Amino acid sequence: MNSDFVSSDFDTPYQGGLVGPEHHFAVHIYFEDTDAFGVIYYANYLKFLDRARSDMIRAAGVDQAGELHRSGSAYVVAEVNIRYLASGRLGDDIVILSTIEAVRGVSILIHQRVMRADEQLADARVTAAFLDRNGRPQRQPREWVERFKAIAERT
Amino acid sequence: MNSDFVSSDFDTPYQGGLVGPEHHFAVHIYFEDTDAFGVIYYANYLKFLDRARSDMIRAAGVDQAGELHRSGSAYVVAEVNIRYLASGRLGDDIVILSTIEAVRGVSILIHQRVMRADEQLADARVTAAFLDRNGRPQRQPREWVERFKAIAERT
Amino acid sequence: MNSDFVSSDFDTPYQGGLVGPEHHFAVHIYFEDTDAFGVIYYANYLKFLDRARSDMIRAAGVDQAGELHRSGSAYVVAEVNIRYLASGRLGDDIVILSTIEAVRGVSILIHQRVMRADEQLADARVTAAFLDRNGRPQRQPREWVERFKAIAERT
Amino acid sequence: MNSDFVSSDFDTPYQGGLVGPEHHFAVHIYFEDTDAFGVIYYANYLKFLDRARSDMIRAAGVDQAGELHRSGSAYVVAEVNIRYLASGRLGDDIVILSTIEAVRGVSILIHQRVMRADEQLADARVTAAFLDRNGRPQRQPREWVERFKAIAERT
Repeated sequence: MNSDFVSSDFDTPYQGGLVGPEHHFAVHIYFEDTDAFGVIYYANYLKFLDRARSDMIRAAGVDQAGELHRSGSAYVVAEVNIRYLASGRLGDDIVILSTIEAVRGVSILIHQRVMRADEQLADARVTAAFLDRNGRPQRQPREWVERFKAIAERT
Repeated sequence: MNSDFVSSDFDTPYQGGLVGPEHHFAVHIYFEDTDAFGVIYYANYLKFLDRARSDMIRAAGVDQAGELHRSGSAYVVAEVNIRYLASGRLGDDIVILSTIEAVRGVSILIHQRVMRADEQLADARVTAAFLDRNGRPQRQPREWVERFKAIAERT
Repeated sequence: MNSDFVSSDFDTPYQGGLVGPEHHFAVHIYFEDTDAFGVIYYANYLKFLDRARSDMIRAAGVDQAGELHRSGSAYVVAEVNIRYLASGRLGDDIVILSTIEAVRGVSILIHQRVMRADEQLADARVTAAFLDRNGRPQRQPREWVERFKAIAERT
Repeated sequence: MNSDFVSSDFDTPYQGGLVGPEHHFAVHIYFEDTDAFGVIYYANYLKFLDRARSDMIRAAGVDQAGELHRSGSAYVVAEVNIRYLASGRLGDDIVILSTIEAVRGVSILIHQRVMRADEQLADARVTAAFLDRNGRPQRQPREWVERFKAIAERT
């Protein structure tokens, strides 16, 4: 098996980014995201929200995968309140808009909107708690808290 | 290819059922349900909740797949509020307990608890709306409404 | 939050079992399994195959989740050859029939057929390798090898 | 609910592209892709392969979602042969390299390699058949066949 290949600009995965205090993350809808009713399956929105939050955390300069490998700690979702407003479909391009609404000792509260151009498909509030390798809540590193607060205060 | 096989009692998929007004649905946790933090991935709980609701609807005598094939109508989730209370893990046996809290014109409100023996892993309230093939809300068949109400009123 | 509930026969998850040398495992098809073409999404068959293999390993008396927690070792799939013969759909009841075709030092080869009554939906051969916590192949415990061979030789 | 937002360069989802006859498609690995063994779950590679093929079909100028809405036809996988060579992990950046190996009347054969930099994680051959809305094989549009052949013959 020859594993040589000509590398290219296409070889860098997508990254979202901050527009003021709001993080933008674009997703294309594939067959895996849909169900037999012809729409995006409701649980899959939580995957998109997770990708967007992971990317926002990366954009804040926090290495979540490195932290998991190093200390075993990770953000785990403690609560989701989501309203589904319109149905997404195969081939849609959507954008997840995320803003940090509160930074607490062991958790952060994030507001996330799922948009298809100007139409909102879903509206969610997600609380993510920082847990140690044994699943116990622990204080977020002070540096991270300051980074998240700096994002929330951007204009 | 020889597709003969000796049929057996193992060939009937699991079905949950009603215990008074409460629907019980048991799930075993496989690798597909977990993530690299070693726990059940948060979006996958919504799959278990959906399986349990689908089975409760079946137990009420409603043929959801038949309706989708016939008229194109289906229940679609309009809202989920879920709190994650403890982490499920590979190999766990869990039970989803579902009760109908309200039956409205075009939707039903269901309370769902995810249990591992006596320990509650998650608590959810889910609103499911009945949509026609074009995604517009429509009144649930009167007969279904009566079946759901009869379940809610069981003691 | 009151987590009391009346336990019932419904609270035990489904388990498949052996019929001679052939392991049977039944699955009901939910919305999560389907896609916008109205059929079971092709990747999801691999989840059903995994559930069936996990259950066959359990039926052989091997505690895979316990082993993962204890030693960090697990079976990981090394190769899949699958042909899709007919489309499964929402609401279908299917059965996965699995037989052990070979037990080698660090891996096992399993033949798996996905049936809907007498109609075969898919035919797969799967090689699963036993890996240690660092992802290196290791010999399967001798006792497990003997259990798997005993199943393969049942009549 | 205010659905206004400032659009940005981040709002366009990632697209892969052709480098000679080889299609490149980059994927970042999120929690949803992993399992409790700490690696990418084996079925999820088939999702990445599907995203890459969908994007290659788009890059060939074929509107698969439009075709599904219009005629009900779609490509459905008929066969997958995949070898898993090394384990992908949370936070990895991978690239799927796809080449068209054969264009037949009702199907195409695609070779797909999953790379993490120079290391190959998986090697797959996938046959996709073109099916009408009733699931019967049908000839691919002549124009599509010519587009796929033109890609295969690029240097």
